[in-house]
Amino acid sequence: MSIKIIGVDADDTLWHNEPVFRLTHKKFNDLLGEFADEDALERRLADIERANIKTYGYGAKGFTLSMLQTAMEISDGNVSTKVLREILDAGREMMVHPMEPLPGVEEALKDLKDRGSLILITKGDLFHQESKLAASGLGSYFSGVEIVSEKTPEIYTKAFARHGGSAETSLMTGNSVKSDILPMLAAGGYAALIPYPLVWEMERADKPDGHPRYREVETLGLLPKWLDEIS
Amino acid sequence: MSIKIIGVDADDTLWHNEPVFRLTHKKFNDLLGEFADEDALERRLADIERANIKTYGYGAKGFTLSMLQTAMEISDGNVSTKVLREILDAGREMMVHPMEPLPGVEEALKDLKDRGSLILITKGDLFHQESKLAASGLGSYFSGVEIVSEKTPEIYTKAFARHGGSAETSLMTGNSVKSDILPMLAAGGYAALIPYPLVWEMERADKPDGHPRYREVETLGLLPKWLDEIS
Repeated sequence: MSIKIIGVDADDTLWHNEPVFRLTHKKFNDLLGEFADEDALERRLADIERANIKTYGYGAKGFTLSMLQTAMEISDGNVSTKVLREILDAGREMMVHPMEPLPGVEEALKDLKDRGSLILITKGDLFHQESKLAASGLGSYFSGVEIVSEKTPEIYTKAFARHGGSAETSLMTGNSVKSDILPMLAAGGYAALIPYPLVWEMERADKPDGHPRYREVETLGLLPKWLDEIS
Repeated sequence: MSIKIIGVDADDTLWHNEPVFRLTHKKFNDLLGEFADEDALERRLADIERANIKTYGYGAKGFTLSMLQTAMEISDGNVSTKVLREILDAGREMMVHPMEPLPGVEEALKDLKDRGSLILITKGDLFHQESKLAASGLGSYFSGVEIVSEKTPEIYTKAFARHGGSAETSLMTGNSVKSDILPMLAAGGYAALIPYPLVWEMERADKPDGHPRYREVETLGLLPKWLDEIS
């Protein structure tokens, strides 16, 4: 089987993202320490985020709205406007946070683009993801960009078809078992997990160890080795 | 010249959108009446929205964040948490507001899809626009959907190329002179304005009356008549 298209996730695969969210969580917990301890704050925020995903979708703007709502609810309306302003500002800082590409990513993309068409496939906020790709300087390695609202087998099937291929002759790589690996395998394609040290709670899932079209690789730079094996 | 692809805008072309924003503006002005009169509130909100577009992009989530910021600033931090909560809830209501298709739109799409590929081209929030298209039940008329962060000549050129055509043999239709008409004409394509009674301040621009590839039509149902003339 020869792989024709390589789909690549963006956040925490090409650049650091989760640390930016963690930093914002820390600010959030510090600001609201008088109302609840860190565990209770994190639990409530996670519950509200989860309930809001179906209305807001993924991304920093929806997360900011969820932080504001959590602050209002966990304080029984007693949080000050000053603190809410600081939360609003912390959310904006996430949106303008400088790009930090992961080490070795650019070299790996240079190598990979000679082995197939590279397609960036990422979920989240359209505007913010486009801004981050532009800021990263990595846009020119990709022959296509797909910013999707959710990563499902159907979405992968459609995305690879739209770029002249099929899931069966494509490989998806990224850091999320739940979004980058399991639905791609379900679509009939190959999937390579590149673990990132931090995983967002909502992206946790068991690895499909032993699956014939699945492999875990340490860095994007090691992906060509697996490509050699399966081609 | 035969038109092969017809690009169709979504908000205020297929369904009512601006009235939902106007309703939210009214709530916002009522909630903050003690701090400023309606003119001052609208001016400040418009200024903040404009400044925030480059960070938040278009759509209801960014608009909600801009409303919250405006409330905090225009009250010098004296707005209550209760009022901020009502603004947050008003923003959420925009996101879950029921779809109201414009009259005659479905019949018009049925007719138009026999005259070329229909592509939905809309800017704004990816997740919210996909939700609205799903709720509208109009998705099946379109052979493609392009949700873009901005409508520029380059974006139109790329979008029509991606669907196997070119701007020169395509027509764009929508209610915004600034977004649907001028950049499409600049890309070398045809553009049909379907005016909507309300226009968002940031979309105002002069009509290109007399341009050979431009026409104003009263409803989407009258577009085939112009297509007959130019084919």
